[in-house]
Amino acid sequence: MSAAINILSAFGFLAAFGLLRLQPFNDRVYFPKWYLKGMRGSPTSSGATVRKFVNLDAKTYFKFLNWMPAALRMPEPELIDHAGLDSAAYIRIYVLGLKIFVPITALALGVLVPVNYMSNTLERSREVVFSDIDKLSISNIPTGSPKFFAHLVMSYVFTFWTCFVLYHEYKTVATKRLQFLASEKRRPDQFTVLVRNVPPDPDESVSEHIEHFFCVNHPDHYLTHQVVYNANKLAQVVDKKKSTKNWLVYYQNKFERNPKTKPTTKTGFLGLWGDRVDAIDYYNDTIKKLVEEEKQEREKVISDPDAIMPAAFVSFKTRWGAAVCAQTQQSSNPTIWLTEWAPEPRDIYWNNLAIPYVELNVRKLLMGVAFFFLTFFFMIPIAFVQSLANIEGIQKALPFLKPLLQISSVKSVVQGFLPGIALKIFLAILPMILMLMSKIEGLTSLSHLDRRSAAKYHLFILINVFLGSIVAGTALQQLEKLMNEPSTEFTKTVGRSIPMKGTFFITYVMVDGWSGIAAEILRLVPLILFHLKNTFLVKTEQDREQATDPGSLNFATNEPRTQLYFLLGLVYSVVTPILLPFILIFFAFAYVVYRHQIINVYDQKYESGAAFWPQVHLRVIIGLIIAQVLLMGLFSTLGVAKSTFILIPQPILTIWFHRVCKGRFESAFLKFPLQEAMVKDTVERATEPNLNLLNYLKDAYVHPVFKGGQMQNHEVDVDEEESSPLVVTKRTSQMGSKHDKNRTVEHFRKNSSSHSHPSRSRPALLRCAAHKILTTFQRTKSQQLSASLSLSLLLFLHQSDSN
Amino acid sequence: MSAAINILSAFGFLAAFGLLRLQPFNDRVYFPKWYLKGMRGSPTSSGATVRKFVNLDAKTYFKFLNWMPAALRMPEPELIDHAGLDSAAYIRIYVLGLKIFVPITALALGVLVPVNYMSNTLERSREVVFSDIDKLSISNIPTGSPKFFAHLVMSYVFTFWTCFVLYHEYKTVATKRLQFLASEKRRPDQFTVLVRNVPPDPDESVSEHIEHFFCVNHPDHYLTHQVVYNANKLAQVVDKKKSTKNWLVYYQNKFERNPKTKPTTKTGFLGLWGDRVDAIDYYNDTIKKLVEEEKQEREKVISDPDAIMPAAFVSFKTRWGAAVCAQTQQSSNPTIWLTEWAPEPRDIYWNNLAIPYVELNVRKLLMGVAFFFLTFFFMIPIAFVQSLANIEGIQKALPFLKPLLQISSVKSVVQGFLPGIALKIFLAILPMILMLMSKIEGLTSLSHLDRRSAAKYHLFILINVFLGSIVAGTALQQLEKLMNEPSTEFTKTVGRSIPMKGTFFITYVMVDGWSGIAAEILRLVPLILFHLKNTFLVKTEQDREQATDPGSLNFATNEPRTQLYFLLGLVYSVVTPILLPFILIFFAFAYVVYRHQIINVYDQKYESGAAFWPQVHLRVIIGLIIAQVLLMGLFSTLGVAKSTFILIPQPILTIWFHRVCKGRFESAFLKFPLQEAMVKDTVERATEPNLNLLNYLKDAYVHPVFKGGQMQNHEVDVDEEESSPLVVTKRTSQMGSKHDKNRTVEHFRKNSSSHSHPSRSRPALLRCAAHKILTTFQRTKSQQLSASLSLSLLLFLHQSDSN
Repeated sequence: MSAAINILSAFGFLAAFGLLRLQPFNDRVYFPKWYLKGMRGSPTSSGATVRKFVNLDAKTYFKFLNWMPAALRMPEPELIDHAGLDSAAYIRIYVLGLKIFVPITALALGVLVPVNYMSNTLERSREVVFSDIDKLSISNIPTGSPKFFAHLVMSYVFTFWTCFVLYHEYKTVATKRLQFLASEKRRPDQFTVLVRNVPPDPDESVSEHIEHFFCVNHPDHYLTHQVVYNANKLAQVVDKKKSTKNWLVYYQNKFERNPKTKPTTKTGFLGLWGDRVDAIDYYNDTIKKLVEEEKQEREKVISDPDAIMPAAFVSFKTRWGAAVCAQTQQSSNPTIWLTEWAPEPRDIYWNNLAIPYVELNVRKLLMGVAFFFLTFFFMIPIAFVQSLANIEGIQKALPFLKPLLQISSVKSVVQGFLPGIALKIFLAILPMILMLMSKIEGLTSLSHLDRRSAAKYHLFILINVFLGSIVAGTALQQLEKLMNEPSTEFTKTVGRSIPMKGTFFITYVMVDGWSGIAAEILRLVPLILFHLKNTFLVKTEQDREQATDPGSLNFATNEPRTQLYFLLGLVYSVVTPILLPFILIFFAFAYVVYRHQIINVYDQKYESGAAFWPQVHLRVIIGLIIAQVLLMGLFSTLGVAKSTFILIPQPILTIWFHRVCKGRFESAFLKFPLQEAMVKDTVERATEPNLNLLNYLKDAYVHPVFKGGQMQNHEVDVDEEESSPLVVTKRTSQMGSKHDKNRTVEHFRKNSSSHSHPSRSRPALLRCAAHKILTTFQRTKSQQLSASLSLSLLLFLHQSDSN
Repeated sequence: MSAAINILSAFGFLAAFGLLRLQPFNDRVYFPKWYLKGMRGSPTSSGATVRKFVNLDAKTYFKFLNWMPAALRMPEPELIDHAGLDSAAYIRIYVLGLKIFVPITALALGVLVPVNYMSNTLERSREVVFSDIDKLSISNIPTGSPKFFAHLVMSYVFTFWTCFVLYHEYKTVATKRLQFLASEKRRPDQFTVLVRNVPPDPDESVSEHIEHFFCVNHPDHYLTHQVVYNANKLAQVVDKKKSTKNWLVYYQNKFERNPKTKPTTKTGFLGLWGDRVDAIDYYNDTIKKLVEEEKQEREKVISDPDAIMPAAFVSFKTRWGAAVCAQTQQSSNPTIWLTEWAPEPRDIYWNNLAIPYVELNVRKLLMGVAFFFLTFFFMIPIAFVQSLANIEGIQKALPFLKPLLQISSVKSVVQGFLPGIALKIFLAILPMILMLMSKIEGLTSLSHLDRRSAAKYHLFILINVFLGSIVAGTALQQLEKLMNEPSTEFTKTVGRSIPMKGTFFITYVMVDGWSGIAAEILRLVPLILFHLKNTFLVKTEQDREQATDPGSLNFATNEPRTQLYFLLGLVYSVVTPILLPFILIFFAFAYVVYRHQIINVYDQKYESGAAFWPQVHLRVIIGLIIAQVLLMGLFSTLGVAKSTFILIPQPILTIWFHRVCKGRFESAFLKFPLQEAMVKDTVERATEPNLNLLNYLKDAYVHPVFKGGQMQNHEVDVDEEESSPLVVTKRTSQMGSKHDKNRTVEHFRKNSSSHSHPSRSRPALLRCAAHKILTTFQRTKSQQLSASLSLSLLLFLHQSDSN
């Protein structure tokens, strides 16, 4: 029954979407991507005012489902061009599902369902309650029947087919990624390496230290670098200023519409309590204060050496140089001078750039333990909250609701609703909790954070949704069982209960899968938010643009949920094949919907080049292995225990297959081969011989709060401080400047030569310097140069003496 | 009783060694290292003939144990110099044992033994048989006693101490390795990278393809390369020739001593059957044939393009260039152009250099499965052989032994001896089987083969010796138990039987550990072999040198055996502390013996720079975790089940500790940091500016059978083919040539510039140096100091070099 309601609601969502998307006043909600691309202005029809808001063209209503073929029409290369490889590869997850399950469904329905149906165990044993679906499942076959051989063979066929498709899909995505990276235009991250854990140096600033290190160790390739500022507090202030400005605009609008009453607000939290003051004045004052605060903070960040974190973005002259630096170990201590490819500038998670090695390890350990407790013990606090959240508790806490709650109909609804609500709230905020945990772990890019959260969420779903539904108990109880039962017994218990849960999971696919997708396309929350903002805040066209929230693919939540359907499909492919068509419909529906959303709605926050594919692949493999192990458990209870041995090679071969795939393709997602780098470098050198790379890179990795107009403000400071050349040079390299390229380069050169040798205490540098002087000396033999040589030597000997 | 016999035999071995080592005619057996180093000639005393063979100096006999202090006297740096870092680090395994167990023993004997002894459970329960040792073990404490708290605390203390020592030892070895690599003289492998899986090219030979690829992708650094020939068959022929020569010499000697009868031999296998012929003529003929065969084979290998394998040793101009190439990915397909550090030339296992990627994976899978069956099912064929190897079977197979076997005393000995012999033979050849399996897996260096075999052997010992002894059953039975019992139950079973096996393992340490070490120092097999060879084969002093087999550290066998003692010590430290002194004696004794052997005997086949230490560390950690888990199992049976929870964080923290150590130190054993490479390059460039690196490297990676005079033969071919310049260049780079260095380099330049682009920037070193001199010049105007200071610069460079 609840399934029927849910399916109806899914169709309701679809119908609503079909109608709402045709209304021009919703255009910005359902087609924001085209606005962002500048290909769609305000509603085009310049007719009557009412036409601007409501579509009165009856014809369009008849074709209200025509968004589906439209979504499928765009070819993939164009899609990659339009939305990026991340989105295109994300869609391929659903394609992968279709490719795997269409032939499997055909085979299973063609072979296994007749085999199952022609037995009649269930009919004979009248005492067990069974549905029609069970008659089509493996439970209908009598214990010890030779018919199980069909299932054994099919299991191998399905495994083989899944691996085959996985391999080819991995290959395709890897190729697409390499093509994508190769065809990409010049991007700062191609030349840049993120260096972390720069060791402190008593004599030099972080910036100088980095410059000298790379000048010595990558002399042919080092170009420039950008230190990282700890601007977290500044970013907070900027954010606060922005939200305060929003409130100011809100009250100003209110005042304009109703000029008689001056709007007032309370000074306390969220305007709920505190003194009542004039709102516009109050917010004007607050903004003034915040502007002042921001200025001070900005001053502080720039002038305080402690605000410079021991991390930097080091850029190289060639992609080859950057590829080399990113893939090699710099120092003999592998916990300092850690290098990795720099993420895209907009992909960086700035807060985590300066965590030392040991702290990073401690954080990982703590988060590991925390995740374990979250997964296995989350029911305890929820049960506690549930015990509090009964009618009496609410009446006590909120006495003014008492009369309402005594109406019997309200009471019964609340009583039916309350127990589940704590769990539902928890499950709704779970992705946020997991994201927070990933952030605490210290990852440095948003894409990586998304992937890590997805991995955690996948595990949680696997243990609590999948196993929890099958064994019908909390994860904690399962853990106890696993500890106290033989490991084969656990597999058997789970395997045995799989066929019984077939009906349940069919409902689950419809409720969670189908309606989830339908809700995704309706975009109810952004729709409401847009109209609220539109009513209260928007004054200009630009405001309206800002009020639009196109959203983006939520990989961290959607991918693990999709993986559950892969798992269900693989587990039930042999056991209850009738589940497969439901899974197929899910994948097909999701494919169309997400394709539509990607084309028309989402605006990706970053572009990682499908870096998540190895994870997708791994999780399907995990699902496959789980299906194989559970099938072994099921078979050992069906009176054909000996045939279980035939199934043992399956997981071993699958793991081996995974290792082969990993070795074959994974590095395409982690490393950048030197050959490709060299080709791109060569092409670029041929086509743009006069490219000023330094200019191109100088502002690329500046913290977002420093970007924009603020830069200019700062350059005044630079000029003011020009009396101290050291500071200026540092600033120059960090934030760009008005010096033209030649002057800047000169500056660098001077800087590196004046600091690197005389003041360096490390033997490497000494020898390096000494040697270079020596070689030049040998070649020139000129007296003039020997003079300069000697003085630098004197300086340098002095230094080494004083050390 | 058997323990007493074994200990007596251990002392017998020691005494025999003490006496035999003083006899000059054994000198080459017990001090071969000094002969190899050329620091010891034939017996020095030029007195009476008898003195040459028997030491008559009575005084030396009184000090027959003085080898012990002598072995301890050499300081470690000298030891590294004398025997290499591998040997020195190997000794540190025993030092690690001492460092871990001396304080643990002291604490355990001081705290736990009194606690155990003061309880008297065992005395009260008269029915259980117990020894005095059991009274000192944990079994003496009544169930549920609060005294177990002492054991809990001690378990944490021991874990902490073990981790502390492990961390510091890892750090020390890593530092020593880096120092060793930094202080090493120039070696070909520092400049060379092994490239495997070169893709086939329709237009070019393998050699040309490699040259072009690296000229394009490492234009500034590529120097030369050496293709790998498939000379396995040739090597076989050469080996056969050598052994035939040995037989010829044997018969010639025989004939010389007894000129009356011409020695004869049979032509069949091992001279056991076939026609009887004149031995000297027969072997002369055979050698002639083999020489001819060798010549043909050599011709074939050199001229046949199919004999060139798709692998090569690519050398670079700088260590920096080689480090970059070894650590980066070359091609977008990660299964071709695989690069890794080239092993030392003598460390290479030539047969495995050309295995394609997929085959390598299949081999690994097969060997993994084979190892699983070997570990768990090896008892089945052995039991089968045992069932055959009874008296009746022997009488049937070898009827001529029948009369002998009917003597009752012989019969009883054979009957007592037979059942065990199949197992003993299996255990003796097990390391060889494992080494063969590692070879099939396709590893490319001897050191890596040793490490992989050691890992396999360690697992085998862990499962079959340790668990097998404790649970008293075959591995297969244990596997069944593990599958059919709850996992906690298995731990409990094992944990419960640990205290009971204390006495058994004390005997084991004495029998296997102590006498094994004593047998090692006696070197019985090399002693006998040497005297046999000396009698029958040796004619000249050079022959005698070849007859000496100094042997080498057998890491693949010795290290896993030593790990068993670590495991025993850690497991029993809390349970039966009285075992610890025996372990301590083992470590101390082994330390002295191996130190002596390393100084005086072993001649290492290769030098890997202690590359095995991460494995040693990992295995001690594995032992620690096993000890912790088993202690949890034991505690849960002792009526203090709740305190088991206190032990749960122990393995988690230990695993975390391992991960931290791995991140911190492991890369020192896998990668070569760019900083170090740059320092070495710079120093070398300063001290030897005119080094001809190409000359130095050209023959370094030639297959051993091509080394020596054969090279020259081939150079004639080169001249003949000079009409085709490309082929010449290829040959030049492969085998060296008569062209002088400049011409070759020119060739390369031309070659590389034609493939890469003309705009290649010159080495930035020059530019950098020019800058530095320029800036110093700007700063200094004085000319007087120049001469003296350049002199001091030279001095300084000399100084820093000699340090």
